[in-house]
Amino acid sequence: MKDLDRAHGRQKRLRGNLSYMVKKAVCLISGGLDSCVTAFIAKESGYAIYALSFNYGQRHKKEIESAKKIASAVNAEKHIIFDIDLYKFGGSALTDNSLSIPDEQNLENIGKSIPSTYVPARNTVFLSIGLAYAEAVNAEALYIGATAMDYSGYPDCRPEYIEAYQKMADLATKKGVEGHPIGIEVPLLYLSKTEIIKKGSELNVPFEKTWSCYQGGMKPCGKCDSCLLRLKGFKEAGLQDPLTYEVVPDWYQ
Amino acid sequence: MKDLDRAHGRQKRLRGNLSYMVKKAVCLISGGLDSCVTAFIAKESGYAIYALSFNYGQRHKKEIESAKKIASAVNAEKHIIFDIDLYKFGGSALTDNSLSIPDEQNLENIGKSIPSTYVPARNTVFLSIGLAYAEAVNAEALYIGATAMDYSGYPDCRPEYIEAYQKMADLATKKGVEGHPIGIEVPLLYLSKTEIIKKGSELNVPFEKTWSCYQGGMKPCGKCDSCLLRLKGFKEAGLQDPLTYEVVPDWYQ
Repeated sequence: MKDLDRAHGRQKRLRGNLSYMVKKAVCLISGGLDSCVTAFIAKESGYAIYALSFNYGQRHKKEIESAKKIASAVNAEKHIIFDIDLYKFGGSALTDNSLSIPDEQNLENIGKSIPSTYVPARNTVFLSIGLAYAEAVNAEALYIGATAMDYSGYPDCRPEYIEAYQKMADLATKKGVEGHPIGIEVPLLYLSKTEIIKKGSELNVPFEKTWSCYQGGMKPCGKCDSCLLRLKGFKEAGLQDPLTYEVVPDWYQ
Repeated sequence: MKDLDRAHGRQKRLRGNLSYMVKKAVCLISGGLDSCVTAFIAKESGYAIYALSFNYGQRHKKEIESAKKIASAVNAEKHIIFDIDLYKFGGSALTDNSLSIPDEQNLENIGKSIPSTYVPARNTVFLSIGLAYAEAVNAEALYIGATAMDYSGYPDCRPEYIEAYQKMADLATKKGVEGHPIGIEVPLLYLSKTEIIKKGSELNVPFEKTWSCYQGGMKPCGKCDSCLLRLKGFKEAGLQDPLTYEVVPDWYQ
């Protein structure tokens, strides 16, 4: 009996030690396709996932429902939905109901200027809260699904921005000062939407759980920047988007 | 009559132009002494003040009441109190009720290591939300009352951190990309508490409206790091702190 107790004690200590050795990563999960693929990449790299999503007054609250499904699909240890009222400041079509969502209908115009869907300093705010979470749970990495390719003209998706953020983060945190900086991981940075979709397909990402549309309809609209880029990506990847759209552009059919 | 209409039109246009020319600054106001002096320095520099305070699950909610009084005293155009539940992550004695506030009682130990009152990435989170606000209201500057002298061992109060934050912010924002970067202004960075109090005294800062204590009692405790640094500052400045403390250390009497 004593032997059994000792064996149990040993097992328990072993489990304790192992749980200490698990590598942790905070993953920002928006509910969209990019952050979903990013979370699956983090999982593949051996991290235990601490999912973080933001409820920031965006119009497309469908994203939050998608984020929950994705966090569950990637087997996250924990999923925090963080309320942050960026709506309070206004200044973006995504959070300000007095501005309309641009309806480009034309892929060539996307990315040529900073669009009205830009939310002031959004990635900076999200990364910073992610950094706080990563430090609190003693995570090694903070994953974000930003991409500099096929991007919609947002300044905070560029490589030079991410690099500057990493330098700042190394100086900002106790972990950084003590020699264990939190790595800002942006695995999609140099991938096109087509490549992201191919990568996701390899990792069996449940694309049907993701939501990319800027509108909050029952089905994705098939007209906004985000829908158009996604459909183009699936087309060029030679894959079928499992979502059903309100309308699809002629070139997708 | 037409002349009068024209004159009114001219006046109105002029007012419109002038209001466009007003320089705006977002000021982070915690309710403490440092951020109060900082806001008065911004005002003296000719800025219209957009005050921003955070309700972040801190124990010392008295700070928020002080912040309101200070925003009013500095004649802020607007004061936003931003709810942000950093308590959700835990990891600091200031937001986590299971950790106790350190009671140094000895000034020599302050600043020698990163204390348990450190809130993970706090200044980074606050500056980032301030940056979003500054961009939304088209402000030129973002003021924070951080100081690298007499500091309590927080990594995100050091000059190299502020410098790295500025570089990141220039790349993060639409304003930065378009050639109008938002300046991160840290006027107290190289001032000791004594110098800050002297500066505040010159600017007629209402010290009686500020709250520095980490505890949330009726009166400041006179024992925590923050009370001790404040009392030492007043003593060395040869000024009287207008607040009444629970107890004061022998050396202050």
